[in-house]
Amino acid sequence: MWKAEIKVLLKQSVLDPQGQAVEKALGSLGYGNVEDVRIGKYLEVTVAGADRAAAEAQVHEMCERLLTNTVIEDYTFELVEV
Amino acid sequence: MWKAEIKVLLKQSVLDPQGQAVEKALGSLGYGNVEDVRIGKYLEVTVAGADRAAAEAQVHEMCERLLTNTVIEDYTFELVEV
Repeated sequence: MWKAEIKVLLKQSVLDPQGQAVEKALGSLGYGNVEDVRIGKYLEVTVAGADRAAAEAQVHEMCERLLTNTVIEDYTFELVEV
Repeated sequence: MWKAEIKVLLKQSVLDPQGQAVEKALGSLGYGNVEDVRIGKYLEVTVAGADRAAAEAQVHEMCERLLTNTVIEDYTFELVEV
């Protein structure tokens, strides 16, 4: 069995108002040295099956089809055997 | 300068309806071998300053005070020098 740890962030070219709002809030809490904040999704998807390459291909496919909006988002993931 | 890669997930004891909905959707797309889906937040926070220990302590503090709801969420993070 494999667990995919998927990180999804807005593409660099896309404005991140949520990140900017949190950056401002951290500044008002006294964290003036915060240079940048980006906010996205984190998913853990566990898939049955022994073959690593098959699991990797499947996770890519699920990301492209459902889990991310590839027009405005980028994703990366790591596979961990569980 | 340090970049914190922060993963935030609901505690195991807390129901994750979003994760369940996505798991069902993946099943209906034909991915019947998906055993579990958990969905949370991913944040990248860049802080100025040279000292790793100070950056680590600050990121913990920011997570506890603003970035996560520690009643229902757990967080982990990695620090990367940038």
